[in-house]
Amino acid sequence: MDPNVVGMNALATQVVIRLPHTDAAGVLFYPRIFDLEEELFERWLESGGMSVRAMLERKLAPTPIVRCEADYRAPVRVGDRLDARLEGVEAGRSSYELRWSFDLGDRRAMDVRVRRAAIDPSAGTSVDLPEILRKWLMESDARIRART
Amino acid sequence: MDPNVVGMNALATQVVIRLPHTDAAGVLFYPRIFDLEEELFERWLESGGMSVRAMLERKLAPTPIVRCEADYRAPVRVGDRLDARLEGVEAGRSSYELRWSFDLGDRRAMDVRVRRAAIDPSAGTSVDLPEILRKWLMESDARIRART
Amino acid sequence: MDPNVVGMNALATQVVIRLPHTDAAGVLFYPRIFDLEEELFERWLESGGMSVRAMLERKLAPTPIVRCEADYRAPVRVGDRLDARLEGVEAGRSSYELRWSFDLGDRRAMDVRVRRAAIDPSAGTSVDLPEILRKWLMESDARIRART
Amino acid sequence: MDPNVVGMNALATQVVIRLPHTDAAGVLFYPRIFDLEEELFERWLESGGMSVRAMLERKLAPTPIVRCEADYRAPVRVGDRLDARLEGVEAGRSSYELRWSFDLGDRRAMDVRVRRAAIDPSAGTSVDLPEILRKWLMESDARIRART
Repeated sequence: MDPNVVGMNALATQVVIRLPHTDAAGVLFYPRIFDLEEELFERWLESGGMSVRAMLERKLAPTPIVRCEADYRAPVRVGDRLDARLEGVEAGRSSYELRWSFDLGDRRAMDVRVRRAAIDPSAGTSVDLPEILRKWLMESDARIRART
Repeated sequence: MDPNVVGMNALATQVVIRLPHTDAAGVLFYPRIFDLEEELFERWLESGGMSVRAMLERKLAPTPIVRCEADYRAPVRVGDRLDARLEGVEAGRSSYELRWSFDLGDRRAMDVRVRRAAIDPSAGTSVDLPEILRKWLMESDARIRART
Repeated sequence: MDPNVVGMNALATQVVIRLPHTDAAGVLFYPRIFDLEEELFERWLESGGMSVRAMLERKLAPTPIVRCEADYRAPVRVGDRLDARLEGVEAGRSSYELRWSFDLGDRRAMDVRVRRAAIDPSAGTSVDLPEILRKWLMESDARIRART
Repeated sequence: MDPNVVGMNALATQVVIRLPHTDAAGVLFYPRIFDLEEELFERWLESGGMSVRAMLERKLAPTPIVRCEADYRAPVRVGDRLDARLEGVEAGRSSYELRWSFDLGDRRAMDVRVRRAAIDPSAGTSVDLPEILRKWLMESDARIRART
């Protein structure tokens, strides 16, 4: 068995690079790491009892992306199995950031940071982070610190 | 745990629809079902002892797509868990077809067919299917027939 | 100047293959031709006085995809300029099909067919094609026939 | 006529948001801005007498992405026409950065920065920027400064 995203837990997972993630240079096409981040994010959210579906159905404040960045440190190819790990979280009043690492064996392949902000979709204005999300961020933070 | 592609076996799997698969109409953006098909195909290939990586490294004849088609029978949304099943295979001399179904609960959501053909990448001409691939197609066919 | 989709008219256009359209095999990743089809479709719709935006804002019946197919006849690579042409249209009561060809120089690279069906998005049931859409299909058909 | 990327010149262009760029939240799916950046980059490269094709064919040192970032300041939707502008370039010994802005009318929608580095693809090590690329970066810089 070889799923694309192999579940270990919400904070550490294996990701397999497939043809749709690559380009003619033979390596990951750079924005596709954010497609993978979105999948990891949605799984992380679900592990905390939330979902993008609930956000879209306005049962929970949606949190669109306000900023993203990635550093590419080693090329990755079709069939590569990357270890993806949530390395850090940071919560502000209305926004929060997740930091992910992607390792290929012993080598860091990529670092990714994505900041999302809670909004009132009708008004388009920022709102406080929902309590359930704030708690899950704090618990994730505690779990990350407990690793070492 | 909630991977995107949840392994059950090489011929029947669960697929989760994520935000990258959707568009502003709120449903799957139609070509993304083929991105998912490619993932299923690569897993199926690996279950048979092959890989796209081996094809790209010319250890095995690559099999580019020569034809694809899809029928969309019911809309699917973010968070939907689809049951994906290999419904049939067909092997010619140099080409082969995989037929997949995607069900949402009791309802058929999509049917997908993809035909690939073995080529000599230097000459660009078609070649006989590699023996390992032909055998895996026959075994898959037998497993599908044994289901009922 | 070298836009991705170079306007000539709504029925014949040039499309440039870019890195995001390709995969590690060095050629177009097969579903991406439908991403390009969607762009061509949206331009064709706008040439007829309609838009996907109007469909999403419920000013016009949306027409989700019910079926698509593509035949891949020659590989295309980054930088290739394809001549895209609307080759035929077919209108039913509630559904319609557009057939596109993609040529690389003298050679046919791909044939694509996409069928869309008008729906009432609240009820999820099919409805008659909007009159403006039916007329644009007929005019497109007339223009295609006048080519020869 | 309404191409996706409407040519004005290599440094200022219009980009139309299409369904493939969006997600179920009704707005641009965040990584897709980098797909558009890649298209703009390839056009910019071609305006300077280079191409990704030449890089892939090893006629010119390829310049894979080493870092990217984006700030999302206003939501964009299907049919939105964005003014894309090269706002700045920065050239190091072996790497260079392009900074793009995307405006929707009077409003800044997104800022994007992408850093690429020239490599020797056989050795995987960084090399000096090719002279033709360095010159085009300097000329682009001069044109940007001349705007005001």
